[in-house]
Amino acid sequence: MVFNINNFFDDKNRKSKIADFQDLDHIDGVSISTVNAYLYDQKRDDLVLFYFRDGASYASVFTQSNIVSENIKWNQKIKSKKISALLINTRNANALTGSNGFIAIKELANDLSIKLTEKQKLDEEHPKEIKSNEILFASTGTIGEKFPLNKIKNKIPNLINNIKYTQNKLIWMKAAMGIITTDTKPKIAMSECKIGSTNIKIYGIAKGSGMIHPNMATTLGFVFTDATLSSSILQKTLNESIKNTFNAVSCDGDTSTNDMVSIFSTNKVNNPNIKNFKDSKLKNFRQSLNDVLLNLAKRIAADGEGASKFIIIKCKNTKTKEDAKNICFSIANSPLVKTAIAGEDPNWGRIAMAIGKSNANIDQKKLSINIGPFKVLVNGTVYQNYDEKILIEYMQNDLIDITVDIGLGKKDFTAYTMDLTKKYIEINADYRT
Amino acid sequence: MVFNINNFFDDKNRKSKIADFQDLDHIDGVSISTVNAYLYDQKRDDLVLFYFRDGASYASVFTQSNIVSENIKWNQKIKSKKISALLINTRNANALTGSNGFIAIKELANDLSIKLTEKQKLDEEHPKEIKSNEILFASTGTIGEKFPLNKIKNKIPNLINNIKYTQNKLIWMKAAMGIITTDTKPKIAMSECKIGSTNIKIYGIAKGSGMIHPNMATTLGFVFTDATLSSSILQKTLNESIKNTFNAVSCDGDTSTNDMVSIFSTNKVNNPNIKNFKDSKLKNFRQSLNDVLLNLAKRIAADGEGASKFIIIKCKNTKTKEDAKNICFSIANSPLVKTAIAGEDPNWGRIAMAIGKSNANIDQKKLSINIGPFKVLVNGTVYQNYDEKILIEYMQNDLIDITVDIGLGKKDFTAYTMDLTKKYIEINADYRT
Repeated sequence: MVFNINNFFDDKNRKSKIADFQDLDHIDGVSISTVNAYLYDQKRDDLVLFYFRDGASYASVFTQSNIVSENIKWNQKIKSKKISALLINTRNANALTGSNGFIAIKELANDLSIKLTEKQKLDEEHPKEIKSNEILFASTGTIGEKFPLNKIKNKIPNLINNIKYTQNKLIWMKAAMGIITTDTKPKIAMSECKIGSTNIKIYGIAKGSGMIHPNMATTLGFVFTDATLSSSILQKTLNESIKNTFNAVSCDGDTSTNDMVSIFSTNKVNNPNIKNFKDSKLKNFRQSLNDVLLNLAKRIAADGEGASKFIIIKCKNTKTKEDAKNICFSIANSPLVKTAIAGEDPNWGRIAMAIGKSNANIDQKKLSINIGPFKVLVNGTVYQNYDEKILIEYMQNDLIDITVDIGLGKKDFTAYTMDLTKKYIEINADYRT
Repeated sequence: MVFNINNFFDDKNRKSKIADFQDLDHIDGVSISTVNAYLYDQKRDDLVLFYFRDGASYASVFTQSNIVSENIKWNQKIKSKKISALLINTRNANALTGSNGFIAIKELANDLSIKLTEKQKLDEEHPKEIKSNEILFASTGTIGEKFPLNKIKNKIPNLINNIKYTQNKLIWMKAAMGIITTDTKPKIAMSECKIGSTNIKIYGIAKGSGMIHPNMATTLGFVFTDATLSSSILQKTLNESIKNTFNAVSCDGDTSTNDMVSIFSTNKVNNPNIKNFKDSKLKNFRQSLNDVLLNLAKRIAADGEGASKFIIIKCKNTKTKEDAKNICFSIANSPLVKTAIAGEDPNWGRIAMAIGKSNANIDQKKLSINIGPFKVLVNGTVYQNYDEKILIEYMQNDLIDITVDIGLGKKDFTAYTMDLTKKYIEINADYRT
């Protein structure tokens, strides 16, 4: 990667604070433990445990694929409103592993629940029993390979021994590093906000597109807050924010069997009680959560496999939101658009092609396209002062802005993606050897 | 390209003859004329005229994009049942060129009609007036650039001077070469069949994906026959065949503003009168037309930009045809699948991923996948004798067969595509300089 993604993320409209990693510290009620289970033959830790000693409220969204991994199946069955732990493994997706894959998760959940209950007895004044159905699992890696149950199970004692009740920026970084596959950078975002007059922290980590021992671009995102919020409020805020953040990102149009974004609140901070999602006291938290998720989502796009440029595609004035979204993703997923941008070629005809094939409602005579601040197409005709030289210069930027005006309505959508380079082919054409 | 595409096209089920270029000769009533209009700065001819001295019946299918080029708009307005000429230009798509682009086509049509009428007066015993609304236009090239009206118009006298009333294999080859952009090979297919006991010829040429002065992958296909058939019968046979041929091919999932496939019959051969599309005497012709279109479609996929492997994807036993088609194209358009195949990696998890994201009706427990003749997934579980070494060996072939069995119904579909290589990026990331 040739560019500093941090330059792109200081949105003007943002009200809350997206801090540097330096500001990361402790979120009360969250414990992090990482270990190298040698799932990869690498030096970094590749197995990560989040432990909530007093439990956490919780909400999640999962992959929309019709083929889902065994751990996602496990998570979807969890009915408990209180979550005690989240275990994340890399290298193996536990997808299409059949009943053995599911049984492995069950065994890990049982083992973790027993060992965490023992830890409760040792450490807590009022120890609780940790149940296996309070434990979530996230997996990313190759589909269809045998799940490395023993490698992971053997490391559970170490993971539990490593648990500390106060976290610092180093352990957040280790966790963010511990969940990545071919990502070139760990992805962390944080925000501080208020519910009523109470200060609240929101920290998030994510992994995006890529793998080393080649697999697919599983998206994982985990957000932690010390706010006191119910699971149902968390679910509503997550549902609200996911649309314009994680669901607005595309690297290659492919969808994993393992995608999962979750939020956990430890209820450690005594903020005003929020019973209604629309309570005005929640507004700042909703905005801040959106900031954190958007920041993570942008980092995923910017670190998409082989990316040399970050691309923001805005479609406005469509009749329906669906149309705006379809147009954005038709452009974002077009290999011809993405290769042109990689080649720094302002070949806007390909953008028009992608709009045309999107099936959205279009009137060619009302269609306008801007690349960066420059008009290229105005009401279906090439801009009268169109100057390709200026466009060629603009295309050399690391951040490319494409704005499409459909001129038929009032809806809009913004999507985030990256260019398509030879490096993408290199990463993904490699043998799994 | 490292492989001989002709090896792949000798379908076992084919009843009619797909001949070598050596067998191409004359189709009565078709005249071909080509010229170098220097639309590219190259030595080959880049402007092609087909002239039907006694007219031709005609049928066409056009791009499904919501943004269409000016020449396609012109063609869609043609109501005449008799076509006298087809002019094909490369280098410029005449798309998003506004009213000037349409006026240019009108001017070319007028000029051609006048000059062809003059030619009728010189050459024919019973000269006819050629009308401008009997002339079709096909264009392929860059979108949004000014249409090179004068360059083309200035060459019309040459094109008309070059018309000969008997064709040979050389002029067919020149025509096939004259319509390509970044295709590495001209694409010709032929078939001979019978309507009743009358011998009929069907010749076709096509262009596929690619460009030099970078543009998009416009698909053009033109088929010519000496059969006596009405335009409405031609339209029905074309509609029937297009689904499993040209509409079963994907190179990169992108759709041009200019796609066009047409069939012309010169009515020179005195075959039995066909009033009904389902007439059993038409069966052999329908099959042969399908053979020609399928052969051309496969050549387009095999010569897709940067292709190193030709891929056949068969999906069977779905509940609906739509499901089978969606699954095939989800696999065919997945960059992760296509790069794995380029890397000769039997990473079938990516095929499963592409099936999962297709939105088709799937029961994971009934899903089976074969790569070539080898089982990899059987009823949702890895095949018990799965041997990756054999798969790795198979992946070294130039022709990769993927078969997906959904196990829920009786419908099927077959799609054709190619792998995604660094060469694709190279071709498409180039400057238009």
